Amino acid sequence: MTDLLKPLIQKNEKKIIFVVLDGLGGLPVNGRTELEVAHKPNLDKLAKSSACGLHIPVLPGITPGSGPGHLSLFGYDPLKWQIGRGVLEALGLGLELTDKDIAIRANYATLKEGVITDRRAGRIPTEESSRITEYLQENIRKIEDVKVFFRQGMEHRFSIVLRFPQNLPEGSYMIPDTDPQKEGKEPLPVRALSPQAEKVADILKRLLERIHYLIKDKKANYVLLRGVSMVPRIPSFGEIYGLRPLCIAAYPMYRGLARLLGMELLDIKGDISEEIDSLERTFPGNTYDFFFVHIKKVDSMGEDGNFDGKVKKIEEFDSYLPRILALKPDVLVITGDHSTPSLLKSHSWHPVPVLINSPYVLGGLVTGFSERECARGELGIFQTTHLMTLVLANSLRLKKFGA
Amino acid sequence: MTDLLKPLIQKNEKKIIFVVLDGLGGLPVNGRTELEVAHKPNLDKLAKSSACGLHIPVLPGITPGSGPGHLSLFGYDPLKWQIGRGVLEALGLGLELTDKDIAIRANYATLKEGVITDRRAGRIPTEESSRITEYLQENIRKIEDVKVFFRQGMEHRFSIVLRFPQNLPEGSYMIPDTDPQKEGKEPLPVRALSPQAEKVADILKRLLERIHYLIKDKKANYVLLRGVSMVPRIPSFGEIYGLRPLCIAAYPMYRGLARLLGMELLDIKGDISEEIDSLERTFPGNTYDFFFVHIKKVDSMGEDGNFDGKVKKIEEFDSYLPRILALKPDVLVITGDHSTPSLLKSHSWHPVPVLINSPYVLGGLVTGFSERECARGELGIFQTTHLMTLVLANSLRLKKFGA
Repeated sequence: MTDLLKPLIQKNEKKIIFVVLDGLGGLPVNGRTELEVAHKPNLDKLAKSSACGLHIPVLPGITPGSGPGHLSLFGYDPLKWQIGRGVLEALGLGLELTDKDIAIRANYATLKEGVITDRRAGRIPTEESSRITEYLQENIRKIEDVKVFFRQGMEHRFSIVLRFPQNLPEGSYMIPDTDPQKEGKEPLPVRALSPQAEKVADILKRLLERIHYLIKDKKANYVLLRGVSMVPRIPSFGEIYGLRPLCIAAYPMYRGLARLLGMELLDIKGDISEEIDSLERTFPGNTYDFFFVHIKKVDSMGEDGNFDGKVKKIEEFDSYLPRILALKPDVLVITGDHSTPSLLKSHSWHPVPVLINSPYVLGGLVTGFSERECARGELGIFQTTHLMTLVLANSLRLKKFGA
Repeated sequence: MTDLLKPLIQKNEKKIIFVVLDGLGGLPVNGRTELEVAHKPNLDKLAKSSACGLHIPVLPGITPGSGPGHLSLFGYDPLKWQIGRGVLEALGLGLELTDKDIAIRANYATLKEGVITDRRAGRIPTEESSRITEYLQENIRKIEDVKVFFRQGMEHRFSIVLRFPQNLPEGSYMIPDTDPQKEGKEPLPVRALSPQAEKVADILKRLLERIHYLIKDKKANYVLLRGVSMVPRIPSFGEIYGLRPLCIAAYPMYRGLARLLGMELLDIKGDISEEIDSLERTFPGNTYDFFFVHIKKVDSMGEDGNFDGKVKKIEEFDSYLPRILALKPDVLVITGDHSTPSLLKSHSWHPVPVLINSPYVLGGLVTGFSERECARGELGIFQTTHLMTLVLANSLRLKKFGA
């Protein structure tokens, strides 16, 4: 795709706002989906004069994680660019990663007589696990010349980052999980699956020895390693598309992903309100021309199975839409990274509603913004990875292909 | 695709008329597109009983040139078969090309004090430029052992073909344009981008020296080179599909493309009227069973931003449609090679309306022939490269796949 687009891209001054309502798509409960129940006059009106459709983040029937969902939205093939869970977790916890780093998801566990008796150390409360993680960080700063960073997640989960003195060769992360996946089994040894991973495996073995010595008297007396990974050398979003992108997102994982793609980030902590304020502040001027606005709570409500809560979050976004429209972006995209039906209380495989508003659309094919209306739109049902090409086209940034 | 189709194809006597209204698709101006405004009772009636849809020539968001647009229509992957502009132009002017040939688009220009002051030599009239081109051909037949052919196009445009004594290695055409693209700049030197192109670049330099000496006292005193290219070894349309195709087109480029695909050509100079006359003359009998009718002016009006003119050209075609229907083709296809909305004054990325009429369609899904109606048709939104398979199927030329 990059090879095709590269010679076609022409820069201009047009500005794009790209809103991701996380987990937007839903399923009917009592006959209507969250989008269909929500009172959202602004979104419905906008949809009528927009190009609408449904997009498929990975493949029909495949439920995307947040990583693949967002990679697709930004035009990266999620099957090609598989970002290790260790990296996503570390980025999500606010750790910055470089080509010198190995990132690992770690779980506190309980070991007795050589076998894992609890893979989650009794789902140790975050408060308690935080203290252990801090204690580890205080006592372990380095193994040989490799710096070690710990960062606590929820309950038994935490992140470890190993920072080597120099860039690591490809394949350095090829170390399988030590988690035996079942209680009553021995933990698996740390082992290298490639010659490049041997040095990393050696450091990890010594790190585990030290950790296990330090926590030997606790209930959480063992650490299981998962998702050993490195940041992929993923091409920069701004360079591929000739755009100057800004990420307006509060949640660590999406911020981490945006940073990975070379987007600039605003320091956002709060809710939709703070994000829209930030958009209004940064939109004028010429510093940025692509604004990725990520709104998390729609997904959270879906994950909780809270149908009414998801409806309310959609309505809340709708109330802010006039402020976005008042900025008069040349192209406005509103979509999600995947569906999260309250009915399923989880991400799902269902195609995601999308609208593209620009002066160069047919419009007039839908009566509102919903899963069923978008199924009738002029964009049809398409692969999410094509969305960025459509966005570039609508901002008149693509020359024609061939004579 | 060819590998899939080959064992499935069965020949029969059914006849296909395949009409391409160049640049057919449009966008709304004051709420309606050119197709929606046009009074076209015959097309609308036909659409109601046809399979309709929208097709995507290259990929969503990608604007196709005429070459890729037509290749897609004929079932060739336009990303695989990239045909140089020099080849298309030369074929269009009636030059036959072999694997020994390099084809170049050339423009007469005006050079003063080392810079190009007019890239089109004052849009020199064809009558005048023809005389210069004939003069060049009389005086230049060969450079070393390489034969040189000139052929005049319209106004400042002409074609040069270099015929080497033996087949050329791949990559021999890798020579960038010498056209600086802007007046007031120096012409670019001829240079080889691959070792295989060095011999060709050397011949071109010597050719330009001779040409510039011969025309030094004229207003058109310089020649700019563009689209240096070679014929791809593209499989024959007739052989792939088991058809005997005839091209009814007036414009050189489309004629050139048809010849490249091994279609036979009628000598057509004129307008829709002459093309329909020719169709009526050639349709009876058993010489041909696939009639590619190319109608250019719809696109030209779009390119000029002439909304009403495009509407008129669609209406003009509609008035001829009864004569096409009177021939009772077994399959009738009406579509475009890409969209050319008057609003954009250029080719665009928007999917192209298509109708397939045969006894084997659902029909009844649309109320007329337009972009928005076709979005609701039984063919959906699909890749243009699948159109020929649908056409073969509708002519009952494809056996079932697998037992």
